[in-house]
Amino acid sequence: MSDIEEVLRGIVGPGHVLVDPDLRAAYETDWTRRFTGTARCVVRPRDTAEVAAVVRACAAAGVPITVQGGNTGLVGGGVPDRGEVLLSLTRLSDLEPVDELESQVTAGAGVTLEKLQAHARAAGLDVGVDLAARSAATVGGMVATNAGGIRVLRYGSMRDQLTGLEAVLADGTVLTRLAGLAKDNTGYDLTQLLAGSEGTLAVITRVRLRLVPLLPARAVALVAVDGTEGALALLAAARSRLATLSAAELCYADGIDLVRAHGRLSAPFAEDYPAYVLLECAAHSDPTDEILELLADCDAVQDATVAGDQVGRARLWAYRETHTEAISAAGVPVKLDVCVPLRELAGLVAELPGAVAAVAPGARGIVFGHVNEGNLHVNVLGAGEHAEEVTDAVLRLVAQRHGSISSEHGVGRAKVPWLELSRSEAELAALRRIKTAFDPDGILNPGVLLPVR
Amino acid sequence: MSDIEEVLRGIVGPGHVLVDPDLRAAYETDWTRRFTGTARCVVRPRDTAEVAAVVRACAAAGVPITVQGGNTGLVGGGVPDRGEVLLSLTRLSDLEPVDELESQVTAGAGVTLEKLQAHARAAGLDVGVDLAARSAATVGGMVATNAGGIRVLRYGSMRDQLTGLEAVLADGTVLTRLAGLAKDNTGYDLTQLLAGSEGTLAVITRVRLRLVPLLPARAVALVAVDGTEGALALLAAARSRLATLSAAELCYADGIDLVRAHGRLSAPFAEDYPAYVLLECAAHSDPTDEILELLADCDAVQDATVAGDQVGRARLWAYRETHTEAISAAGVPVKLDVCVPLRELAGLVAELPGAVAAVAPGARGIVFGHVNEGNLHVNVLGAGEHAEEVTDAVLRLVAQRHGSISSEHGVGRAKVPWLELSRSEAELAALRRIKTAFDPDGILNPGVLLPVR
Repeated sequence: MSDIEEVLRGIVGPGHVLVDPDLRAAYETDWTRRFTGTARCVVRPRDTAEVAAVVRACAAAGVPITVQGGNTGLVGGGVPDRGEVLLSLTRLSDLEPVDELESQVTAGAGVTLEKLQAHARAAGLDVGVDLAARSAATVGGMVATNAGGIRVLRYGSMRDQLTGLEAVLADGTVLTRLAGLAKDNTGYDLTQLLAGSEGTLAVITRVRLRLVPLLPARAVALVAVDGTEGALALLAAARSRLATLSAAELCYADGIDLVRAHGRLSAPFAEDYPAYVLLECAAHSDPTDEILELLADCDAVQDATVAGDQVGRARLWAYRETHTEAISAAGVPVKLDVCVPLRELAGLVAELPGAVAAVAPGARGIVFGHVNEGNLHVNVLGAGEHAEEVTDAVLRLVAQRHGSISSEHGVGRAKVPWLELSRSEAELAALRRIKTAFDPDGILNPGVLLPVR
Repeated sequence: MSDIEEVLRGIVGPGHVLVDPDLRAAYETDWTRRFTGTARCVVRPRDTAEVAAVVRACAAAGVPITVQGGNTGLVGGGVPDRGEVLLSLTRLSDLEPVDELESQVTAGAGVTLEKLQAHARAAGLDVGVDLAARSAATVGGMVATNAGGIRVLRYGSMRDQLTGLEAVLADGTVLTRLAGLAKDNTGYDLTQLLAGSEGTLAVITRVRLRLVPLLPARAVALVAVDGTEGALALLAAARSRLATLSAAELCYADGIDLVRAHGRLSAPFAEDYPAYVLLECAAHSDPTDEILELLADCDAVQDATVAGDQVGRARLWAYRETHTEAISAAGVPVKLDVCVPLRELAGLVAELPGAVAAVAPGARGIVFGHVNEGNLHVNVLGAGEHAEEVTDAVLRLVAQRHGSISSEHGVGRAKVPWLELSRSEAELAALRRIKTAFDPDGILNPGVLLPVR
């Protein structure tokens, strides 16, 4: 094999090929420290042409590539395995002016969500997707993994923001489709195919995104309900009556207890309740009255508190958003991200403790999530050496209830062994045919999404 | 070759294999009578299992298939060419109960839009896509062509309604993904890949669609503006201020004159204006005041009339909706469906008359469309024997302005010669690789979307 590092230095400059283990380290382990591997080097191109040259060089040398954005993924999809070239896209940070006529913007794959949000808001617009990792997560990675977050109810996932992209195929060919046409029926939608493909079909270098109106008036309600069924009843009422609804988050008594103890928060209500729903509405004018009317009419509401000011809203959001931090403080959790059809949600939540206890005695699951999509983040504490059995038990329950083993995090390396729970043999064969059509030599992200054959 | 008709009779019953030319005729010509061909027979399966058996039989015999839904397409994509088996899906008309919890429904490919609308409305919901061919257009065809229509501004195209589907691949394998999960990141999105693939990758047999709230209160404004730029200024204001905006349609003075003469309609305003925008808002409560406020504030408005009652709304919609009928009454038009980025729209509209006149002296283009998507329906009257030159000239103009040669109608057979205007060589190669991966022997819809090789 020729010295690929030397070739890569010629493409991106010597300062952007990192071979020293100390320099590679930050790229070789994900931020949760659950996934780690070894890259033969890290290469940091600055534009699409350099990415294409890097991919061509690796393809010619038969060296596989792991593609990485902000390294904020939760399933190890951007972490190398055994000696790949790690292609980091963070230097692709060009950000074009907001196209106000179209409400769209074109951004380099390495632009962080936070930078994009600031850019959009300066033009009186906003990004439809928001998530906690915004300061590091890059838009390229968010498209490649079809990121979700707290606003999916209102604006959809990352793929729904996408009106075009630019990508480098496994042979170094560049596909460019950035005109941002809202309606374009000229053959297979390559843009949608690459969204959520986790870097296994192409390297996304630029994305064209629709923006949404910046809504200055927000109101948040924290609502106590008698359990999952009550949460669903409230959701149904909110969805049909609140045109401004932008988030509906679900959590349970055990999670709230943990959050309260961790953050020394006061109890939200005089009494304790089995479950809680946080609703957020966003509009041009104050949506508080609309929420109050709904709460007054909805039988599922056991108690509720509403905040229209920023401090009050943040106080209510903290009960939901501090879950991750409070759980991590209590131990190293097995983290799963699943969804089921809404009619299956209460049954799944009821079955989880038994299923977890059966394989990991003494372990306990804390559950919270995005109720509109039936999307639960299942965090199991105290699983000890039974992490794999817990994962297996929970994912099998989800599959029995016609759910998905990965609702918003993707497959990555972590979920590959369980992919067949969510995908039929016929579907897996179709996925493999697509992979082979785009990347016949398996250069791009081997071991991610599909098993290496 | 074995007698394929005999095999097909064994699958669907003798009454559903039509060989007699008189019986085939209605399937062999599209409703516009612009596209016609010959099928060796028409086969009408009643469910997915029969479709799979038909596809397997045709694949085994090496007989290509043309897939047809309601035969309301505008680009000849569902019309046979030379002796294919015509696979008609209109008998796949099962309609499951509306899933009110999820606001979704599963429908057989042969269910008409009109039936689906009635079904959804009976449950207090509605279908996000609406179009004029609703009484015959089938949901399978609408997904296969990613149909658009008048509500794309609010709810997106058919692909945006789609949460899952069932389809038969070229080898007879059935893919079933109908759980309707709102968020599911377990590999390449086959559902989105098949949407808009025009029957060339698989035969869609069932679809799972999200439904939208049924909005009882509507208001329509017909607004006179000074031209395309004025229309865009009005659109921008409406989009940012009217959360209930659900349609924004554009037409011009020459179209309005034709419509008025054809339908004996009175003038909408005391004076004539260069262009007109129809805005519709839909909400739970009357949006009339919201529209009136916008119109009062927007400098682009030259004159305006607003209707909140059903008769008044229909009267205003007639100025826009009668365009197709009035144009057809005036002659046989060359019909093109294009879009460009909004910044290119005024330039394109200005250039069109000259470009048409250069290749077809005396011809004239009537233009109308969906302004939010930059989507124009260009209808050229009097092109005579220069239809192909007119098509070529208009589509080249569109391509120069970074537009799409098919915004909502698809490629079909009609646009194949011009596909390279909208797709780069690299993209066409990627489309072909996908086609080959799914249908290596070219059994499904040969000659549609991609050239036969």
